[in-house]
Amino acid sequence: MHGIENLNVLAHRLSPGSLLTDPDLLESYRQDWSFDPDSGTPAAVVRAADRAEVEEVLRFANEYGIPVVPRGSGTSVVGGSTAIDGAITLSLERMTAINVDPASRTAVVEPGALTVDVKLAAAAAGLFYPPDPSSYEICSIGGNVATNAGGPCCAKYGVTSDYVLGMTVVLADGSAVELGGARVKDSPGLALAKLFVGSEGTLGVITSITLRLVPHPSPAHTLVAYFPHMREAAAASHDIAVALRPSQLEIMDNAAVNVAEDFLRMDLDRTAGALLIACSDAGAAAESEVARMEKICEKLNSTAVFKTDDRFEGELFDRPRHAIYEALEKAGVVISDDVAVPNRHLSALTEGLAAIAERNRTTIVSCTHAADELTHPVLSYPHGNESAAVAAAVARREVHELVAALGGTISTEYGIGRQKRAALAASVAPELLSLHRRIKQAIDPSNILNPDVLIP
Amino acid sequence: MHGIENLNVLAHRLSPGSLLTDPDLLESYRQDWSFDPDSGTPAAVVRAADRAEVEEVLRFANEYGIPVVPRGSGTSVVGGSTAIDGAITLSLERMTAINVDPASRTAVVEPGALTVDVKLAAAAAGLFYPPDPSSYEICSIGGNVATNAGGPCCAKYGVTSDYVLGMTVVLADGSAVELGGARVKDSPGLALAKLFVGSEGTLGVITSITLRLVPHPSPAHTLVAYFPHMREAAAASHDIAVALRPSQLEIMDNAAVNVAEDFLRMDLDRTAGALLIACSDAGAAAESEVARMEKICEKLNSTAVFKTDDRFEGELFDRPRHAIYEALEKAGVVISDDVAVPNRHLSALTEGLAAIAERNRTTIVSCTHAADELTHPVLSYPHGNESAAVAAAVARREVHELVAALGGTISTEYGIGRQKRAALAASVAPELLSLHRRIKQAIDPSNILNPDVLIP
Repeated sequence: MHGIENLNVLAHRLSPGSLLTDPDLLESYRQDWSFDPDSGTPAAVVRAADRAEVEEVLRFANEYGIPVVPRGSGTSVVGGSTAIDGAITLSLERMTAINVDPASRTAVVEPGALTVDVKLAAAAAGLFYPPDPSSYEICSIGGNVATNAGGPCCAKYGVTSDYVLGMTVVLADGSAVELGGARVKDSPGLALAKLFVGSEGTLGVITSITLRLVPHPSPAHTLVAYFPHMREAAAASHDIAVALRPSQLEIMDNAAVNVAEDFLRMDLDRTAGALLIACSDAGAAAESEVARMEKICEKLNSTAVFKTDDRFEGELFDRPRHAIYEALEKAGVVISDDVAVPNRHLSALTEGLAAIAERNRTTIVSCTHAADELTHPVLSYPHGNESAAVAAAVARREVHELVAALGGTISTEYGIGRQKRAALAASVAPELLSLHRRIKQAIDPSNILNPDVLIP
Repeated sequence: MHGIENLNVLAHRLSPGSLLTDPDLLESYRQDWSFDPDSGTPAAVVRAADRAEVEEVLRFANEYGIPVVPRGSGTSVVGGSTAIDGAITLSLERMTAINVDPASRTAVVEPGALTVDVKLAAAAAGLFYPPDPSSYEICSIGGNVATNAGGPCCAKYGVTSDYVLGMTVVLADGSAVELGGARVKDSPGLALAKLFVGSEGTLGVITSITLRLVPHPSPAHTLVAYFPHMREAAAASHDIAVALRPSQLEIMDNAAVNVAEDFLRMDLDRTAGALLIACSDAGAAAESEVARMEKICEKLNSTAVFKTDDRFEGELFDRPRHAIYEALEKAGVVISDDVAVPNRHLSALTEGLAAIAERNRTTIVSCTHAADELTHPVLSYPHGNESAAVAAAVARREVHELVAALGGTISTEYGIGRQKRAALAASVAPELLSLHRRIKQAIDPSNILNPDVLIP
């Protein structure tokens, strides 16, 4: 990489300790949670102390044409922060400030803050930051914004983008710019803050985010229902989503129920075609909402329905869903994907997943955010087993083909990253690709910002 | 305008009747609801029959460098579709198809469809399209998307952008491109659909929009409360918005109450400093939500509180707010503005408005979407009175200065248009202006798309 021999110049512009070149330290910044075997080794890692250091890094990188890979907590499963040989990995992990303003129901946060800490800080002020990716205890809010992360809450509360009012970004040339505003309805020109949400570090480096908060909801009432077939669970979720605003509407398939039962031993019905877990946080209306959900489930042949208004029992009802990842991660390598097919094809999708798993002798379980028609097929195989890894990779390709055949999409809330860039390029029209490239060229003409991800 | 002598070429590419050049007909496309005296006269108006005709117009215009002003129903109050001398005004008024798909809770609509018709079509399927700008019965959905329109519903349901899943746009070179997708969580690359929302026709011409619909809410319970001072009404609205999710939270100032009472004669309290109108559509929780609102209002010295769970009485309670515009429009010229100041300054804002009105001997009333801290100062003066028009213009400038002094913004939900372009340029950082220009240049290099609006 040209210019990288001038790293000393950059080191002198940063505070002591911000720039790392020790090979042992660099090693831990090579991969993210996509564990890409082709990940590079950065020439340097900068753990920026503040926005000024981010500006210095980009000014330097832009001058010498050195790629910069922005990185939050490194939990991308699509290679969003996989390192590039000889490049600079710019970690935001030290920028973790969170300031909640109850009066305006907003929070100004730095990108390295963990999502869980943003949620807790909001809750301490009686407010609620809804987005809840399953990794919320270990992922950074900057990464959530960079990928427009979602989660079960999206059923009622929408995605990260819906909560971003504004942000400060440092552009490729090192200039900082404020996008959006502090108010719900501020409109200072084009909706550039919304454009930067989900841009995966390709357009600029986020150094501060203004988030909208909402009143904290009432404690949830929870319902679980078993169905003989996925078909009926899908129909029930459709009928619920059309009529009500569940705060969560999840469906586990038979394989997922069995993985959870193996792990938890809580007498789940291993024969069930699907387990639906729905919540209502509608306060005094929660009881009647859950009663209506129950009626819908019963009409669609649910074999057993349980309801609770107790918070802890509700968490117990939701436990199997969380247990899937824990169980599979204990047993081996886990590859979670994020696909979407129309509700009417959900049953065909899960049947297809079972067939693909059997054919390839691998494990695939699925959990669906049913209100948003978003399914996580979770593949897993034992550590250190080469042939099992190959079988899983084949199975994953087949899953993507199945999704395409069902009129679905293979990218919903994890981002595109490195891993799905080629698939994106293959699936969208040339005019759309051209538009991406023109915007990238306009904002990062030297193509230094996370050049291996998202934009084909 | 060069090239415009080739209009015949374009006419031959369009269906008969799509291209208008009759001076009488052109006249009616010169102005929008900003009634700009400096509006130009288009060389031609194309009332496009379909997307193919939009493509033809843009290919032609791009070839000859002729500006194109996209136009919905012409209700912009900031000059968003004011005509340019010698340019083409591209009207979407004939493209009005609406297709609701209850299964996926989406609607695919053409830009010329009226917002009211989109709302009715959704309701006919048991679904709800929330955005409700006050002009919803006469404005087009394309215009709503082009300006990211809002309305009272935003208190709970968010703005237009939150409901746009995808769109088809024709770019300046005449190529069509699909942005976003049909699913809530589809992520085909950068969030370009969100970028085009609010772009006021400067980046492309929208020919189809995929909207997200939600379940139809329960009938609203409504509360009205009088307060001696705006200060207390503002405090009450803050306390309500922090704790609850009102489906509407409006405040009329004293001047607005008096204009409504003059018109309606329904015994409103003319001495009240503010009238708060709040709704809850939370079903079985609505009664308890409204009871909590009542307690909050009483604690903040409301002089009278009325509640109802009757839909028609609720509409009566909300009648004064709608009456403001009717009353003022009957009496003269109306200029509605869309500013925002932090809640703690709302009282200072309305006191300032009263002082400005008195000083300039003009009428200013205000209505505030309190949950979003967005205030509409509505100026009015008699038709055909030159000195009154001048006084109103002076007053409007003073209103903008007051808003800036209170740390607010002068543009929230009407768009920037022609009228606020200079103010935008003056109020934002050069880096942000540069970013706007680079994106505009990348997408519309010949600068033919609505070149007089938004982008400085």
